Amino acid sequence: MTHSPLLTDLYQLTMMQGYLDYSMTEIGVFEFFVRKIPKERNFLMAAGLEQVVDFLENLKFQDEDLDFLAKEGRFHRDFLDYLASLHFTGDVHAMPEGTIFFPDEPILRIAAPIPEAQLVETRIINILQFQSIIASKAARLTLTTTPNKLLVDFDLRRAHGSEAGLFAARASYLAGFSGSSTVLAGKLYGLPIFGTMAHSFIQAHDSETLAFEHFAHTQPQNVVLLIDTYDTEKGAQNVVDLAPKLAGKGITIKAVRLDSGDMIRHSFEVRKILDHGGLQHVRIFTSGNLDEYKLASFVAANAPIDGFGVGTKMVTSSDRPYLDCAYKLVEYGGIACRKKSEGKATWPGRKQVYRSFDQQGKMDSDVITVEDDSRAAQPSSRKVTPLIRPVMLEGKRIVDLPSLSEAREYALTELERLPPPLKSITQSKSFPVEISQPLRDLAAEVDERSSG
Amino acid sequence: MTHSPLLTDLYQLTMMQGYLDYSMTEIGVFEFFVRKIPKERNFLMAAGLEQVVDFLENLKFQDEDLDFLAKEGRFHRDFLDYLASLHFTGDVHAMPEGTIFFPDEPILRIAAPIPEAQLVETRIINILQFQSIIASKAARLTLTTTPNKLLVDFDLRRAHGSEAGLFAARASYLAGFSGSSTVLAGKLYGLPIFGTMAHSFIQAHDSETLAFEHFAHTQPQNVVLLIDTYDTEKGAQNVVDLAPKLAGKGITIKAVRLDSGDMIRHSFEVRKILDHGGLQHVRIFTSGNLDEYKLASFVAANAPIDGFGVGTKMVTSSDRPYLDCAYKLVEYGGIACRKKSEGKATWPGRKQVYRSFDQQGKMDSDVITVEDDSRAAQPSSRKVTPLIRPVMLEGKRIVDLPSLSEAREYALTELERLPPPLKSITQSKSFPVEISQPLRDLAAEVDERSSG
Repeated sequence: MTHSPLLTDLYQLTMMQGYLDYSMTEIGVFEFFVRKIPKERNFLMAAGLEQVVDFLENLKFQDEDLDFLAKEGRFHRDFLDYLASLHFTGDVHAMPEGTIFFPDEPILRIAAPIPEAQLVETRIINILQFQSIIASKAARLTLTTTPNKLLVDFDLRRAHGSEAGLFAARASYLAGFSGSSTVLAGKLYGLPIFGTMAHSFIQAHDSETLAFEHFAHTQPQNVVLLIDTYDTEKGAQNVVDLAPKLAGKGITIKAVRLDSGDMIRHSFEVRKILDHGGLQHVRIFTSGNLDEYKLASFVAANAPIDGFGVGTKMVTSSDRPYLDCAYKLVEYGGIACRKKSEGKATWPGRKQVYRSFDQQGKMDSDVITVEDDSRAAQPSSRKVTPLIRPVMLEGKRIVDLPSLSEAREYALTELERLPPPLKSITQSKSFPVEISQPLRDLAAEVDERSSG
Repeated sequence: MTHSPLLTDLYQLTMMQGYLDYSMTEIGVFEFFVRKIPKERNFLMAAGLEQVVDFLENLKFQDEDLDFLAKEGRFHRDFLDYLASLHFTGDVHAMPEGTIFFPDEPILRIAAPIPEAQLVETRIINILQFQSIIASKAARLTLTTTPNKLLVDFDLRRAHGSEAGLFAARASYLAGFSGSSTVLAGKLYGLPIFGTMAHSFIQAHDSETLAFEHFAHTQPQNVVLLIDTYDTEKGAQNVVDLAPKLAGKGITIKAVRLDSGDMIRHSFEVRKILDHGGLQHVRIFTSGNLDEYKLASFVAANAPIDGFGVGTKMVTSSDRPYLDCAYKLVEYGGIACRKKSEGKATWPGRKQVYRSFDQQGKMDSDVITVEDDSRAAQPSSRKVTPLIRPVMLEGKRIVDLPSLSEAREYALTELERLPPPLKSITQSKSFPVEISQPLRDLAAEVDERSSG
């Protein structure tokens, strides 16, 4: 992963020079949040914090970066010297990865000298938006299957570049996937990797059966055979016919994979052929253009499918490839502020989100309020949790972030705590998110000041 | 850009071991093509070849990669030793970047020992699909404006990770954009970068006017002022009021930027205020949720807008975030082959695409045929060009690829050569692409052989 501070918009640098020219280096507080929840989602899941912290900790201009900026001709020497010694000295508060969140709820807050907080905006949005999109999409797939089924990320080829493939492998695992086909994701994030064979392997052999046999010998612990290259049902019969020969050599066929055609019909046919051939233990794995709606149709048809490879539609979040999200200045030099642009007004000041749970432990409602609202922290009866927690202070990590598998456990707990209607893949009633009176009062005060 | 060979699917490695275990190292020929053109596109534009060649030239397993694979436990020592000394030794043929292409037309062909050709599949699709999506989307925006308008990529924050942002800056510039706001894209690809200020810069100041003044002093050559933070028309008046003071110091205001609300209405209002204030030279630049449809509505309304910042909808290609594309084995060991999976059958063998032009130099029709079809190369009357050209032989680049600005010139020529109906952003009749008789004959021969 690149940590180049040039992964930013040029205007961040032109603004930074402006701030420094006028000694405007007081603390700017920015919050990242989503303005609206898309109708194709009932909730969102926070992801990407680990990469944000990593980016902030490693932020440093290299000589070649400064040479490039010097040649660009917009920046003066004093500013370039400032950049040469720049590192991130701010505070970070955030919701833990895997937390379910809703519109207007900040999932990350940066409080840093405003030039620093400005510089990092672009990359922070770049990381958090994408990983949260993927975790939110992947969570819908997780909720549509049962834990005994294999749900594997097959995303790299149709991902928007390499980092999208890697981040999506990570974010989908966070949201409950079993693992990924992307080898580098296994190396970088320690998540399980999966893989068998493609059609080309079959085509390169004189016959499908010979390809199956070769594959079984080279991967005896991992015999998953792709059976749709020529004819799915014939492929299944070829598997049945080959099984005794392999068994004689101590090799067990684990599964077959279907990648085209009417998956429901084929899965029933193939199941019948396998069972009739004594291969009741052989699982059926499917792939090819899958999403939560297809998975739901398999479940509804009670199709005998044991695993799913999900790629394109998940990694591009094709039904909703971006979020209406923002990283907005909410306070500068100790004074709360907000933007009022048409249709884009935001809530001012440092905020906290408190979540209440019902007696069954399901999420009940949220309150967004000012950070120091002591009343919201202690409501009378129900269990209430603050969602935003300190992560970095003065540029240093102050907590050990959870490992990816710990974050995954937490994310799965979050999915369990969802009110049942929100678990559906069809649109449900909005989750209740209240804006507290103290926050409304602050907004009124800010507006009065700016119009006064 | 990472060149890790672990940017691949696990199945490429399991198949490779299978090929090597059975000494199947003959030349496998794979072609990359798009199966169907989405209804939201009338043509596609090839992009990403430079990055593919770069990847192939630098392909090398590092010790840490091999250690990871050894620990994974699926691979034997001989195979890992083979990987340790692996580099890419194959041939590459491709359409130049910026070429307009249509379904079933290969834009890249790899001919290499099959284990190598297999390994690189995932990353090749990952690069070519994404850059071609973006070039194809960006070309629609280019076609919707006129060359005297500024068209700037504002994509990084909503891109799917950092590489998507960089690749999109590159591919949109290729397709005719003026440049990008992404600083690192300027450094990596030598494209022009653009940037001014954000709302936070205004908010951090006590007044909008003071923010404008500070910015003008810190970027006197580049005074573009964002006027919608509080009220667009008041912002425009503040610009008018400030202009004489700046002029007194020799500073000229270049443009204002609108980022919210009804752009058409605001642009007329703002133009009136600027003109009335003697600022006829100040340009109006807009941004915020733009795409080719919005641009077309501005053109239709004759809105006085001089430039556009385009981000989210372009970088995610939001109306069509993926292509139905494939990298398929078309020949192994000198024998043509094809996959016949339901709905996914492909044309066999090494192919060439010939394009005819009419008397006005507009594209007329394409023929996809076998590579050695001498008849197709010399039709009687019309001018005919082969689109696929050699790029690498035996792992070495044999031609200098054009620079990005040369490729951009070529892409703009390609856009000029489009038949007028295809330049529209609404769906036009399909461009005629013929499958030649020799290619049909080859497919029949392959099918007969595989069923025989």
